[in-house]
Amino acid sequence: MTILSGMRATGKLHIGNFVTLENWVEIQNKSDKNFFFVADWHALTSHYDTPEIIQPSTFDIIRHYVAVGLDPKKSVLFVQSAIKEHAELYLIFSMIASVSRLERIPTYKEQISNISTKDLTNLGFLGYPVLQAADILIYKGDRVPVGEDQIYHLEFTREIARKFNMKYKEIFPEPQPIISKVPKLPGTDGRKMSKSYGNVINIETNEKELKEKILPMMTDPARIRRTDPGNPEKCPVWDYHKAFTKSQDEKDWVWNGCTTAGIGCVDCKKLLIKNMKERLEPVWDKLASTSVEDAIEIAEDGNEKARKVASQTMQEVREALHLRW
Amino acid sequence: MTILSGMRATGKLHIGNFVTLENWVEIQNKSDKNFFFVADWHALTSHYDTPEIIQPSTFDIIRHYVAVGLDPKKSVLFVQSAIKEHAELYLIFSMIASVSRLERIPTYKEQISNISTKDLTNLGFLGYPVLQAADILIYKGDRVPVGEDQIYHLEFTREIARKFNMKYKEIFPEPQPIISKVPKLPGTDGRKMSKSYGNVINIETNEKELKEKILPMMTDPARIRRTDPGNPEKCPVWDYHKAFTKSQDEKDWVWNGCTTAGIGCVDCKKLLIKNMKERLEPVWDKLASTSVEDAIEIAEDGNEKARKVASQTMQEVREALHLRW
Repeated sequence: MTILSGMRATGKLHIGNFVTLENWVEIQNKSDKNFFFVADWHALTSHYDTPEIIQPSTFDIIRHYVAVGLDPKKSVLFVQSAIKEHAELYLIFSMIASVSRLERIPTYKEQISNISTKDLTNLGFLGYPVLQAADILIYKGDRVPVGEDQIYHLEFTREIARKFNMKYKEIFPEPQPIISKVPKLPGTDGRKMSKSYGNVINIETNEKELKEKILPMMTDPARIRRTDPGNPEKCPVWDYHKAFTKSQDEKDWVWNGCTTAGIGCVDCKKLLIKNMKERLEPVWDKLASTSVEDAIEIAEDGNEKARKVASQTMQEVREALHLRW
Repeated sequence: MTILSGMRATGKLHIGNFVTLENWVEIQNKSDKNFFFVADWHALTSHYDTPEIIQPSTFDIIRHYVAVGLDPKKSVLFVQSAIKEHAELYLIFSMIASVSRLERIPTYKEQISNISTKDLTNLGFLGYPVLQAADILIYKGDRVPVGEDQIYHLEFTREIARKFNMKYKEIFPEPQPIISKVPKLPGTDGRKMSKSYGNVINIETNEKELKEKILPMMTDPARIRRTDPGNPEKCPVWDYHKAFTKSQDEKDWVWNGCTTAGIGCVDCKKLLIKNMKERLEPVWDKLASTSVEDAIEIAEDGNEKARKVASQTMQEVREALHLRW
């Protein structure tokens, strides 16, 4: 079983990414073949106007991978653009990828019509799922930890694998998703976590900042007075507890305290801050002791390993297509 | 001045290609930096269902390049798919290539609606001009011998160069076409020369076949009897004379003889056969003495030279985009 996943190099990682990364660490520890990469070419599809943010973000993501617990001894940690074979397989897959099929992928239509601040009508954005198929299939990844929004892309990857296998040669698996059970964390104001809303908590932070962001956090809007009972289901703080509070007793204390007005929102938030700090502190320590130079070294080591696998797959692909070199 | 052009590896070369190749030889002899390649990835955009024809065609084209007079000492003769950097630059250009701009290229619309025997609605076919831009710009080609149908693609290449230079760094020239003055040769039946019409004369042929194809060739349909005067402008044999008969005296003899009914069509065709044989015989000899192994050796030598230039350009491109590896 080969696990593969990646994150786009478009900026700082936030606590939503932290939850995803913890999930990857769990998966890594149960599997012996793991590839986790930084998708810097993918970042270019939307950030082609600000490519200067991509490299610092790339190194930063590698630092975070290691800090949260991805282990270079157990997982190949690498950078997409360093493995040129991805581009070659992308080009080859583009011969069998239907344009109208790509246009029908729900996330494509959605993003094209929702995101008005960026021009996403470029060929790279349309071909995004094709590059993603190349990313996965070049390592013969058969299990891919993804968020729910990526389900459609993975379905497309399976179609490409099937098409290639039928037309040319049985080379690729049809990868299945591992859908994360971790809930998506909202921003501190209850909306989607997004830099442009200023409601993001980065992984690389400290206790002081954590307090400054959690204490004024939005709660159940119907709980106006301390004596009103609250509804955790309508409170983003509760979403954070679900992700960061492991103890069932503490969770019960929050739930019961809130719904009976037994505790105030500040009590609830203070517990959350304590638990977030406990979970994040080892990551902060590891981040502090992992330099950009360390990240580069780890990536170069991973790139070499990834390249070996990728070039072997491409050898098979070229033979299947009667390409000599 | 850097010259660059290429031919798609989709089958045998015909005498229309011969005329183009002779033109390239002339250009080569006046320039000191020449790249001529075999476009095998481009062949895949339309021949993805029959990739097995591409490799033999690739070697064959290299043999023809040399046989007609492209000289590996003066020109880098190479194979597109051997230079992976083309795929990398294609991927990067696809970030700044607009989908709607690509859809508006006249040849795209034309081919999509004209060719019903092949499904051309794949991403590779839409991205064809982007790959072509990468092919040219990666060698900083500034003069491109093309047929008239390629003018739109070259215009697109200039747009991509300009866009990249403005957004990131002044790296690429804006290549200008060298439009061949040689007329397009029709098939032996007067229609477009095409394998599916069975009206093609391949370069690699012999005198016997030449007679078999030229003697029954279609002529001016209005010249029914030997005594009717003919109109060379309406006769495909005259198009062939324009390409193969160099002597002005002979051309005059054909023109005057035809328009005054002084000569018959057979006389005219016999002169054409003589002249075609004279021009093609040295090519036949060179083809007979150039094996597939020779072609592979020539290509591998050329690939190495091409790769050096391409990888240097990509180094500049990656730096401009802040990509480390």
